[in-house]
Amino acid sequence: MIKKLLIANRGEIAVRIIRACRELGIESVAVYSEADRESLHVQLADEAYCIGPTASKDSYLNFTNIISVAKLTSCDAIHPGYGFLAENADFADLCRDVNITFVGPSPEAISKMGTKDVARETMKQAGVPIVPGSQGIIKDDEEAIELANKIGYPVIIKATAGGGGKGIRVARTETELIKGINITQQEALTAFGNPGVYIEKFIEEFRHVEIQVLADNHGHAIHLGERDCSIQRRLQKLLEETPSPALDGEVRHEMGSAAVKAALAVDYSGAGTVEFIYDYQNRKFYFMEMNTRIQVEHPVTEMITGVDLIKEQIKVASGEKLSLTQEEVVFNGWAIECRINAENPMKKFMPSPGKIEMYLPPGGLGVRVDSAAYPGYTIPPYYDSMIAKLITYGSTREEAIARMKRALSEFVIEGIHTTIPFHLKLLNHEKFVEGDFNTKFLEMYDLMETGK
Amino acid sequence: MIKKLLIANRGEIAVRIIRACRELGIESVAVYSEADRESLHVQLADEAYCIGPTASKDSYLNFTNIISVAKLTSCDAIHPGYGFLAENADFADLCRDVNITFVGPSPEAISKMGTKDVARETMKQAGVPIVPGSQGIIKDDEEAIELANKIGYPVIIKATAGGGGKGIRVARTETELIKGINITQQEALTAFGNPGVYIEKFIEEFRHVEIQVLADNHGHAIHLGERDCSIQRRLQKLLEETPSPALDGEVRHEMGSAAVKAALAVDYSGAGTVEFIYDYQNRKFYFMEMNTRIQVEHPVTEMITGVDLIKEQIKVASGEKLSLTQEEVVFNGWAIECRINAENPMKKFMPSPGKIEMYLPPGGLGVRVDSAAYPGYTIPPYYDSMIAKLITYGSTREEAIARMKRALSEFVIEGIHTTIPFHLKLLNHEKFVEGDFNTKFLEMYDLMETGK
Repeated sequence: MIKKLLIANRGEIAVRIIRACRELGIESVAVYSEADRESLHVQLADEAYCIGPTASKDSYLNFTNIISVAKLTSCDAIHPGYGFLAENADFADLCRDVNITFVGPSPEAISKMGTKDVARETMKQAGVPIVPGSQGIIKDDEEAIELANKIGYPVIIKATAGGGGKGIRVARTETELIKGINITQQEALTAFGNPGVYIEKFIEEFRHVEIQVLADNHGHAIHLGERDCSIQRRLQKLLEETPSPALDGEVRHEMGSAAVKAALAVDYSGAGTVEFIYDYQNRKFYFMEMNTRIQVEHPVTEMITGVDLIKEQIKVASGEKLSLTQEEVVFNGWAIECRINAENPMKKFMPSPGKIEMYLPPGGLGVRVDSAAYPGYTIPPYYDSMIAKLITYGSTREEAIARMKRALSEFVIEGIHTTIPFHLKLLNHEKFVEGDFNTKFLEMYDLMETGK
Repeated sequence: MIKKLLIANRGEIAVRIIRACRELGIESVAVYSEADRESLHVQLADEAYCIGPTASKDSYLNFTNIISVAKLTSCDAIHPGYGFLAENADFADLCRDVNITFVGPSPEAISKMGTKDVARETMKQAGVPIVPGSQGIIKDDEEAIELANKIGYPVIIKATAGGGGKGIRVARTETELIKGINITQQEALTAFGNPGVYIEKFIEEFRHVEIQVLADNHGHAIHLGERDCSIQRRLQKLLEETPSPALDGEVRHEMGSAAVKAALAVDYSGAGTVEFIYDYQNRKFYFMEMNTRIQVEHPVTEMITGVDLIKEQIKVASGEKLSLTQEEVVFNGWAIECRINAENPMKKFMPSPGKIEMYLPPGGLGVRVDSAAYPGYTIPPYYDSMIAKLITYGSTREEAIARMKRALSEFVIEGIHTTIPFHLKLLNHEKFVEGDFNTKFLEMYDLMETGK
């Protein structure tokens, strides 16, 4: 078993991992940038070291400094959390080279899934449904035009190195297609150092449904059901729930099996998420991408299965077998997560960093808070704006929603703006309550009446 | 369904009930003494009214003022919580007279269970095992001596109007018996206005195991498993868990069935707890008493069954049927509750009221906090010292313990002393970890090394 773990991250996910370490009897080492000296993860870890200046590239993305701290403190493993180095195959590779366990899949699996056209092809071979589109990256305009005519407009142009909503563009005509490919290639070259793009049929109305998978190094892979993450703003998820109100038992089963196939196809290890486009009108789903890391929204799955995903990651990385089989996975009730961001929803979600003057998280039955906030904490403006994840559990969706509204209404965060008012509006929206929404929900309904 | 509910209580249980109301869409009315003006329950309720001075008898026990507020605010129901008026048959009776729903059993059921010798006799008739002892109250010394000789010393003398550890005394010889009866009678007359005492065989080494029951007004009664509350200090529970590490499936089943019989025997309605003496050496259990109200430790049952006991109470009081049958009760995992008191465990648990300068409850997976504390809150010295209930869930007892230790270690409460250090010692004690303890645990091991 891993004895001492360095957490190469900050914020709530660093706190989450430190908690799992403490429960497993593993020593934890936090790292922090100069801006994060007063952070909760620094206070909670057994040891903490500054790894550089405020800019992520100099601290949380700094391979050398992170590896040095791990070596100097005799850590035998590094957990990357999400974001930062979590899907960096080079970093995973470096860990292997210096004999440190990377808590995550192999560099090869990260690479395969991180390169979108390779992932697409791998999925196709494995029998996982993919959206009709190009085979590999687009070579020239002629190929693109021919293909677009074949699959029909609109199409979506995607940078093979993109992800998280970056490097994608929709084209509804041939002119838009050619222009879009050129712009996306240039942007991708700048942002990711790789200009490759591919095209796919654009499914306009869909739900974002993803499957949590777990795999070990002994050939076992299971899934822990789906999460519906259709409530997004500019491709950023704001609320997630499980089960999905849109899935029936048959589709759920098929999607789960497809996700397990996807994991096995890349010899996956640890926790991962296979994201699908769910074309609910035709009851068809297509592979979108696989996130080869723990996700922000993992707690909803934990709430209805009782499985501690971070512990499973650590155990698998330690060489253990999965602690349960597919048959042993039991689903109970309903769970919802709201991402509470330090943003002003009345002003187009403008970031609202600053000092939290008063802080009191909600409590009671079925309420979970994952946060790195505390009274008097100053949220730095340099990193992401998420300050808390509020998760509620209910025996039914109705109860989970009622509990979430109750918990949001008693959550005290003073001194900054937060997205709590947004979530309250969302949870009271008739269409949301009915479970009748897709990824365009927030484009269709201007909840904050900001006249955007 | 109840539309507007007055909560005749304070502290965490008032907050707990307000939360349930909010989730059910029921308006909540808080009441408070002059000392509780700044309390969290006052802030969270939809409305709040002062019902009198600091002394409980003038406020939280003041029938007239409470009923007046209920009437003036058009409440159709009153929830008494625990303590104060929760087991006061006269109050329940008064509510009935003025046409307000008392969220709890009938005055008759409260009376029967509250009068210990009547309860004993009722249980005997219903086929619930009782400890060998007197039939009804003791008439004179001769009867007591004869009976004690028959059942064998040691015996326990109990005031029939007592409860919660008050009005009981052990006798190991005839001399102690006569003296004990006289003292207990005098004390009981002073404390409860009823000098009646009875005697029972004293079982020296036992575990306190209790069964949660739920019953409706349509003839249904079910149980939701047991709680082990053997960790006590001077008969006050400090830590509770479910399941009990001491019970096997057969005893669990029998105890559950006995508790349902007990409830049916008094036409019980709502949530109640049947407490048993579990003589683990002989695998025999005996009726101790029934608490005809919600209990402090109810959350552990909620954690492993998913049933919201306060909501069930409210629904049953509204005339609904129980929301589940015995067969539908499913038990998952393990849950532990630690009562965090404002007391100094290093100084014989001396109360430590005062201002909470800094407060940050723990969070994350499997952690629940029920509390009325907040940063800057001043704990008044007038009421009980419990300031938070920390509940953890784990898929196994080992995980629930590890999580509790983790959660306790990150619980920030500054400005006062708390029992957190005591709980950490307890959870690390070999015998506790093994599940090998009885109600004398804290007499046997001086955890805080206070040399008491």
